[in-house]
Amino acid sequence: MENNRKHRSFFQSLLLGLMMSMLVVSISGCDEDDGPDVVNAPSATDKTPKYIFFFIGDGMASPQVNLTEAALADPNFRLVNGAITLGALNLQHFPIAGMATTHAEDRYITGSAAAATALATGHKTSIGTISKNAAHTLDLKTMAEMAKEKGMKVGIVSSVSIDHATPACFYAHENTRKNYYEIASQMDDSGFDYFGGGYAKGNLSNGVPAYDIETQMANAGYAIVNTLAQLKGVQPGDKCWAYTDYDGSAALYYEIDRMGTDHVSLAQFTQEGIRLLDNPDGFFMMVEGGKVDWACHANDAVSATHDMVAFDDAIGIALDFYNQHPDETLIVVTGDHECGGLSLGYAFTGYGSAFSLLKHQEISYQEYSEIVDGWKGGGKTFEEALDDVKDRFGLGDTTKDPAFALTANDSTRLETAFNDSMNGGFDRNDEEVFLKYGPYYDPFTVTVTHILNEKAGISWTSYYHTGVPVPVYAIGAGANSFSGSYDNTDVAKKIIAAGELN
Amino acid sequence: MENNRKHRSFFQSLLLGLMMSMLVVSISGCDEDDGPDVVNAPSATDKTPKYIFFFIGDGMASPQVNLTEAALADPNFRLVNGAITLGALNLQHFPIAGMATTHAEDRYITGSAAAATALATGHKTSIGTISKNAAHTLDLKTMAEMAKEKGMKVGIVSSVSIDHATPACFYAHENTRKNYYEIASQMDDSGFDYFGGGYAKGNLSNGVPAYDIETQMANAGYAIVNTLAQLKGVQPGDKCWAYTDYDGSAALYYEIDRMGTDHVSLAQFTQEGIRLLDNPDGFFMMVEGGKVDWACHANDAVSATHDMVAFDDAIGIALDFYNQHPDETLIVVTGDHECGGLSLGYAFTGYGSAFSLLKHQEISYQEYSEIVDGWKGGGKTFEEALDDVKDRFGLGDTTKDPAFALTANDSTRLETAFNDSMNGGFDRNDEEVFLKYGPYYDPFTVTVTHILNEKAGISWTSYYHTGVPVPVYAIGAGANSFSGSYDNTDVAKKIIAAGELN
Repeated sequence: MENNRKHRSFFQSLLLGLMMSMLVVSISGCDEDDGPDVVNAPSATDKTPKYIFFFIGDGMASPQVNLTEAALADPNFRLVNGAITLGALNLQHFPIAGMATTHAEDRYITGSAAAATALATGHKTSIGTISKNAAHTLDLKTMAEMAKEKGMKVGIVSSVSIDHATPACFYAHENTRKNYYEIASQMDDSGFDYFGGGYAKGNLSNGVPAYDIETQMANAGYAIVNTLAQLKGVQPGDKCWAYTDYDGSAALYYEIDRMGTDHVSLAQFTQEGIRLLDNPDGFFMMVEGGKVDWACHANDAVSATHDMVAFDDAIGIALDFYNQHPDETLIVVTGDHECGGLSLGYAFTGYGSAFSLLKHQEISYQEYSEIVDGWKGGGKTFEEALDDVKDRFGLGDTTKDPAFALTANDSTRLETAFNDSMNGGFDRNDEEVFLKYGPYYDPFTVTVTHILNEKAGISWTSYYHTGVPVPVYAIGAGANSFSGSYDNTDVAKKIIAAGELN
Repeated sequence: MENNRKHRSFFQSLLLGLMMSMLVVSISGCDEDDGPDVVNAPSATDKTPKYIFFFIGDGMASPQVNLTEAALADPNFRLVNGAITLGALNLQHFPIAGMATTHAEDRYITGSAAAATALATGHKTSIGTISKNAAHTLDLKTMAEMAKEKGMKVGIVSSVSIDHATPACFYAHENTRKNYYEIASQMDDSGFDYFGGGYAKGNLSNGVPAYDIETQMANAGYAIVNTLAQLKGVQPGDKCWAYTDYDGSAALYYEIDRMGTDHVSLAQFTQEGIRLLDNPDGFFMMVEGGKVDWACHANDAVSATHDMVAFDDAIGIALDFYNQHPDETLIVVTGDHECGGLSLGYAFTGYGSAFSLLKHQEISYQEYSEIVDGWKGGGKTFEEALDDVKDRFGLGDTTKDPAFALTANDSTRLETAFNDSMNGGFDRNDEEVFLKYGPYYDPFTVTVTHILNEKAGISWTSYYHTGVPVPVYAIGAGANSFSGSYDNTDVAKKIIAAGELN
């Protein structure tokens, strides 16, 4: 994970500078309470921003943020002297915070389409709807469309497919998020300047490009690139659709699997987006960290944490830009909903936490599920599978950490799950089975991540989204209005008002 | 619950007024986004407050706040047309929000003593310590002591015993929270003007007053009263210790059990506190809602919700005062930590929620556990016990709600738990048993609340505190500094700085 830490410099430098000022204050005999306030040092004003960044962490609420903070407490996922180093994440240094409720028009626990419609347009809609009203009779204008009409350049970036619900809600209008082709077909109609991240799921058939989305985009004048070198070659002023190596869902690979490859990162898509969009009339850029949600659906805390870091690294890029244009830049960060009912506590570990165990997981549940699937038909015995788990997750390997010792209960759970993965025959409609394995997760893999998480003092209540509020973080021009408790539709209204987009 | 809603008038009136203004704006053709901003209408300034209220919800984080909001969506705990009425709670209308980390000096998941020391003094300490440093070599001065030294009057109010960890950390200094007698003995030493809420646990032996705490307080000039009428008879300027009918832990009864009695409520203690403390030199009052935590430890969502309402009603009293002195009053609300790993989502109910089921519970787990205990030795058959559950929780009574139908799995869980309650013989050290019943809860009662909660779409990961951050809400003079992400020690530092207490 450390190879991705280069974009933490802004606040680290700020913090160091302020700590040194505080040291001087302290030496001069004043109370430390009189020293500069690190948290509030970055500015929040009522000015109208020329550059607007909107970061959406899909499935990100406070538990995801603070798990990542705890896991990042030192380079080895270890608590330093039992204490936490606060502020590991860029977003935690934003001077303004808010809390937003997330419910959809027709359901308390929202989905990404209804939530992103609220965040993009300021209006509630029904589950599954892409920036239309609940009755599907009206298109709802998005803040990105407003920004474009105002003459700003517009960029849409996501670590999942570019036609997935969250990015789609900024440029498309569809009755259902499932209409991937129809959504992708609206990319060129939007006239937006930059699309970056995953591929278009709507252009795939059995994982292979099969339709005319690329043709549509090329005909509309978009440069289509799929390596960082190609992306760096695109000139400001040129329209661009940039994607990178993608998985079966047209999304970037999980960060834990992407690290060490030459796949383009979310931070790189953000960095190049700024280069392409920067112009005297300003720009609006939405950046989604989309796979925090997917990892949390699967109750895979470590993969979620790595994707949180990738998301926060992209925020670090925007902060570098903010630092150059502090009076003209607004950055707003929020989540669309919590996912998984994640909590930093587990009944059986009580008041204990052992975040250091998490660093031993080196593969996402997704890739591991495929490996386990390959064992069917006798590829591995249970004992061999346990050895594999020791290698890839640490679990069971007491040489890595004594806390990895398996209890009799752990072993029983793992063996049952292994047999279920190999032989099937279990019934997910049974409540107890469903609680163990969820709607479609590989029994052995999800049992491994559950036990690893529990030993670290982390657990989950669900394989779906939950209804707890999402945090909102804001910095810069117009950020003052984002404090307090409000609804997710208000996040959009505040951005639109701050940017005078409408 | 409706008989306690009288203190909601301030924001309801404000909301109504603003909605009417918005209606006029709407009729005149303007966009609704141009209307007044309800959330930000109350003021937050950089002024120095003369009156400071510090509300601490023990065990309160965002899940507890938003569960209460959802449950209060209509007078019958029902969603109105499937949607939520936002802003059911006073604290949700505060213009400033923040998020605070809570860890102790020696543990990631904090306890109430270490957390309250941080909130009262601005310093981290070790688990169990009452406003001393972790090495127990130094007393840490509390903001209440600072306020007293500055010439302000000081009040300490709690719904648990007045010598419990949270209130204790504002007036006492002890190596361990367990030294209840020594803590209570420091009430008179503090010279504070008003103590209100539960009795002193340190004065009890087997639930009966046995020591000299009352004598100490009387000798120090405190009027000691234990009814609302007596409390109303105390004159401003007189020192007072007011308590009400208390349970075996010297705490107020759970709100769900207290309602309908003549026991003094947290709001009434707050109201009378204001009357006694109000003076030209200002005052500081800490009010703790202490039993949200206890209910969440037991995974009893409904009792937690009722205690959240009692806490928010006390906040409503402070808001009434704020409304009279908006330029001179600061109100800060936070929690000391989350409790229970509460989430508004449960795997088996997926995206569904049924908060309306919660209204049928009419007794706390505490009182019900005592009832169940009385059945030992053959007092009730399992079938009779199920009938009792239908009456007191709704669970199993499909005439109250079809969703109350018990599945085969529900029935098995209930029957196993009933037999365990009646006959014992189970081992809480077994992980699966522990997950079901926790460290000491009555098996049948906790199984009833678990199943009720799950059917409502709510669940828990723990019987202990968790490490997710707590929300901070602020309004009034000095409130501006409370936005953003920070540590719980910073909450104290910000109050001390805002009030110029040091």
